Amino acid sequence: MNHNLHDGMNRWFAAELRVRYSECDQMGVVYHGNYLNWFEVGRTEMIRESGHTYRSMEDAGVLLPVTDLNVNFRQPANYDDKIVVFTRMTVFTKLRLSYTYEIRRWDADASANRDPMKVWRMGEVLPGELLVTGETSHVWLSKDWKPVRLDRVLPELYDTLSSLFTGDGKR
Amino acid sequence: MNHNLHDGMNRWFAAELRVRYSECDQMGVVYHGNYLNWFEVGRTEMIRESGHTYRSMEDAGVLLPVTDLNVNFRQPANYDDKIVVFTRMTVFTKLRLSYTYEIRRWDADASANRDPMKVWRMGEVLPGELLVTGETSHVWLSKDWKPVRLDRVLPELYDTLSSLFTGDGKR
Amino acid sequence: MNHNLHDGMNRWFAAELRVRYSECDQMGVVYHGNYLNWFEVGRTEMIRESGHTYRSMEDAGVLLPVTDLNVNFRQPANYDDKIVVFTRMTVFTKLRLSYTYEIRRWDADASANRDPMKVWRMGEVLPGELLVTGETSHVWLSKDWKPVRLDRVLPELYDTLSSLFTGDGKR
Amino acid sequence: MNHNLHDGMNRWFAAELRVRYSECDQMGVVYHGNYLNWFEVGRTEMIRESGHTYRSMEDAGVLLPVTDLNVNFRQPANYDDKIVVFTRMTVFTKLRLSYTYEIRRWDADASANRDPMKVWRMGEVLPGELLVTGETSHVWLSKDWKPVRLDRVLPELYDTLSSLFTGDGKR
Repeated sequence: MNHNLHDGMNRWFAAELRVRYSECDQMGVVYHGNYLNWFEVGRTEMIRESGHTYRSMEDAGVLLPVTDLNVNFRQPANYDDKIVVFTRMTVFTKLRLSYTYEIRRWDADASANRDPMKVWRMGEVLPGELLVTGETSHVWLSKDWKPVRLDRVLPELYDTLSSLFTGDGKR
Repeated sequence: MNHNLHDGMNRWFAAELRVRYSECDQMGVVYHGNYLNWFEVGRTEMIRESGHTYRSMEDAGVLLPVTDLNVNFRQPANYDDKIVVFTRMTVFTKLRLSYTYEIRRWDADASANRDPMKVWRMGEVLPGELLVTGETSHVWLSKDWKPVRLDRVLPELYDTLSSLFTGDGKR
Repeated sequence: MNHNLHDGMNRWFAAELRVRYSECDQMGVVYHGNYLNWFEVGRTEMIRESGHTYRSMEDAGVLLPVTDLNVNFRQPANYDDKIVVFTRMTVFTKLRLSYTYEIRRWDADASANRDPMKVWRMGEVLPGELLVTGETSHVWLSKDWKPVRLDRVLPELYDTLSSLFTGDGKR
Repeated sequence: MNHNLHDGMNRWFAAELRVRYSECDQMGVVYHGNYLNWFEVGRTEMIRESGHTYRSMEDAGVLLPVTDLNVNFRQPANYDDKIVVFTRMTVFTKLRLSYTYEIRRWDADASANRDPMKVWRMGEVLPGELLVTGETSHVWLSKDWKPVRLDRVLPELYDTLSSLFTGDGKR
């Protein structure tokens, strides 16, 4: 389940997951590199919410590799924890895209409200315990790894993400 | 370093590696799925020994996905262990290929002889402590996932692997 | 969402997931080793359905490592596919446990019924396209990797899994 | 093979590896998260060069988790590439440690000199094509995830790393 946490600019999206055994290391916590997989889940689900998919974007010949990332680890996640990946766009242009993330431990079943979006709206803060924050920057590339302008190669996706980012879309 | 452990049919090849932190789980041992990555390292290095590469095979449009695998786990490998992946072909035809593997804990630096091949030849047994055994079966496929005959699509590779398998090659 | 697919002996359990980008390789399909992570998700969710958790079992000092596995790959899963992991116990004793798995591509949203259990009951076959089948065998071990008898070290878990396996439990 | 690339302060260490199939994604390049595993290999081998091991440090009850990381991706690494991970310490105190990394594509076999350290000394620049740069910060923690002072809990390791960092050691 994924949720649009804000109707205006730079809204948060939420993707829920549970920590897998294979994601933990011998310190008994999630291996630090695996949070990047979760950021990717957050991006994937955010684009899906827009009505497009990252998969169809790649099928159309457009790649969106990571050019920069930074991550701050505050508390570790543990095996079997219920996690919410909060994702929002911070930069959106014809050439590039940046996201920011918050990884939070939050169990919908232990909450009066199972929808992290509604919990957020009621409380004005993202629900759950903050574990990890991060940012990734990306460029639109062709399959042969050359920069492309998204508004030219995939104008519909460009328009959708643009209105999603500026908040003037119908959602 | 990789070594051809036998000059006749079904010879063993050896690839050495050290266990990475990211490969271990919270039992403090290598996560069971990661041995499959090491089998892949063994296959890659075995083909390289033949003078071809798996990479150039894929570049030429031929894939070799796994169709069946089985693994027996006897003892776990631990972080920072020195490991040898022993690999040999057990089936080789125009349509398919099978390998068998032995994962052994063995430290060349603690051995009188740093070359696992020579240790094997002297002792007639593979060196080190046996941890995991396995087998994988594969089919030759085109990029669109259709079966291909290797002798037609990549005759040179077919001839090399064939002589490697039957032991009538120059090596 | 996870579901108990059968009320009698050897019932199937279902765990749903979506293929992540990080799980795919350069053939454009799920890397074969990653299906083992999904088997682990299937086992974790099956034990949770019993009212216990694998996590609390480990906290109580009992490990359940894999001793043997075999996998048959029929069709590949692709990025962003919706997947159901079907899991059932095939061996259950005081000393060991075995599971069998079916990985199926099935999209609840495209089905008249979103619950794979109900779809199964109506059709008498597991829903979706069969991609991968597998089996894993396990032994109960202590933290120092010695065999333990589950009925002695965790009698409540033993009783629960026992009734789950033989089908004489209240579920 | 690992090499100490500088005798003074903040010297570089080099660890060589080859890109594995399991490390690549469906863009045909190394999945961005996997560079973090290589940074870990670089750290592990750097500490080994000092005469200690990260493994024995953990066995002695001291953990060194990542608190912050940032990575800049310039060019992708591809399957089967030969890679050198260059690592050096940038911060070293009783409480924390930071590293910087350069991931470079460099094939010792194609070089007149197989030792990246000697190549560096001759040319005054790190050899190979720069692909990825990064930094990680770490804190010394106990097994129960509390900060510890390294000079108190592992004074020998503290002294060794200290002289390695300040360059007044015998190496």
